[in-house]
Amino acid sequence: MPNDTTTLPRILAFDVFGTVVDWHGSIVREVDALGLGVDAVVFARDWRAGYKPAMARVMSGELGWMRIDALHRIILEEVLSKHGVTSLDDTAKDDLNRAWHRLDPWPDTVAALTRLKTRFMLCTLSNGNIGLLADMAKRAGLPWDCVLSAEVFHKYKPDPGTYLGVADVFDAAPNDVMLVAAHQSDLDAARDCGLRCAYIERIDEFGADAPKDISGDARNNFHARDLADLADQLNC
Amino acid sequence: MPNDTTTLPRILAFDVFGTVVDWHGSIVREVDALGLGVDAVVFARDWRAGYKPAMARVMSGELGWMRIDALHRIILEEVLSKHGVTSLDDTAKDDLNRAWHRLDPWPDTVAALTRLKTRFMLCTLSNGNIGLLADMAKRAGLPWDCVLSAEVFHKYKPDPGTYLGVADVFDAAPNDVMLVAAHQSDLDAARDCGLRCAYIERIDEFGADAPKDISGDARNNFHARDLADLADQLNC
Repeated sequence: MPNDTTTLPRILAFDVFGTVVDWHGSIVREVDALGLGVDAVVFARDWRAGYKPAMARVMSGELGWMRIDALHRIILEEVLSKHGVTSLDDTAKDDLNRAWHRLDPWPDTVAALTRLKTRFMLCTLSNGNIGLLADMAKRAGLPWDCVLSAEVFHKYKPDPGTYLGVADVFDAAPNDVMLVAAHQSDLDAARDCGLRCAYIERIDEFGADAPKDISGDARNNFHARDLADLADQLNC
Repeated sequence: MPNDTTTLPRILAFDVFGTVVDWHGSIVREVDALGLGVDAVVFARDWRAGYKPAMARVMSGELGWMRIDALHRIILEEVLSKHGVTSLDDTAKDDLNRAWHRLDPWPDTVAALTRLKTRFMLCTLSNGNIGLLADMAKRAGLPWDCVLSAEVFHKYKPDPGTYLGVADVFDAAPNDVMLVAAHQSDLDAARDCGLRCAYIERIDEFGADAPKDISGDARNNFHARDLADLADQLNC
């Protein structure tokens, strides 16, 4: 039953890109700083849009296991080419690729996670690799109890092995884990595995000029405007 | 050159049992609290002594991959039998087994890690499983940036894949990682992989009545009385 807080999960597993950090605004900031003469808003969306097809190539077996860092680097070449950028050498491209390690949290994130940490085990469940997530957390002050990643399971979300992998790591039943995510498809896959689901709106994930559908789904256990609202609803 | 701090590694990887937490004192405390009528000091040492042979059975392929939680549980049966304990049911044994999730830090640990965290990426590199390490960190307030474990690599220390695995996770050269450990054999294996080494004395690891050899090795990059001393030497 949605919003039944009489029993609560022990573990909150967080999607990261879009849910915890503002990838779009952060990539726009980094691209703008380079003065490449491109439309940074479109550039950021193009880079992100290459992500799901690249993961699909890994999961289909076409590519062997590769980290998101490596996938981002492949996509970056395509996006630079599309936008006509020829001025970056490999060192500069590698540094730009690590922009994904330097994503800024949403304004509510750090304080809300700090509140949630007092009652729950907080872990990431991101397709980002471990080193990326650890660098990001250290820079942004994200107080994770544990950094879990597709890299631990060698499977990308929405593979069931990722959601069930979190429960297994903590020797917990699936419904003792709640996925917190701004993407309904991620939550739907988690629910199919028996996890609980908390939807976070993040209407500006793709930029203020491109508000996204934030209707969520009535089957989610929680629907929150942001992580501070989730902390309120969970009485933290 | 030992104590050359002109170049420092980016990542400190910590052995945990004995180096960061007092497994012996903590297990004695838990066993004493159960009133089993056993010599808790010997019981704790016997439980720990079963650990290396059990890991060797996993690494030889005799057992498939198993977490330390499962190995501890197998060893516990043997130790209970040796000490003539027949009063515990499975639930009580499972709870006692989770004593390894509830190990207390050494008195200097939390403050020293907090200092070290200001300059270095801090991760665990323990044969303990991820859930065990995350539970321990949450209870004890250990401020890891990242929880890494044999479980991530499906290899136990001293397998080279664990030490090189840490460097790989952070896309770092081996000498950009320093293992911090109270066990010279662990450090020797790490050095063979190109990691730097910091030895921590922990003379009372096996109890105050059984002081251990703390001579270390001149090839260690640092030799510290405890983690506070290491933080001093690293100018944190």
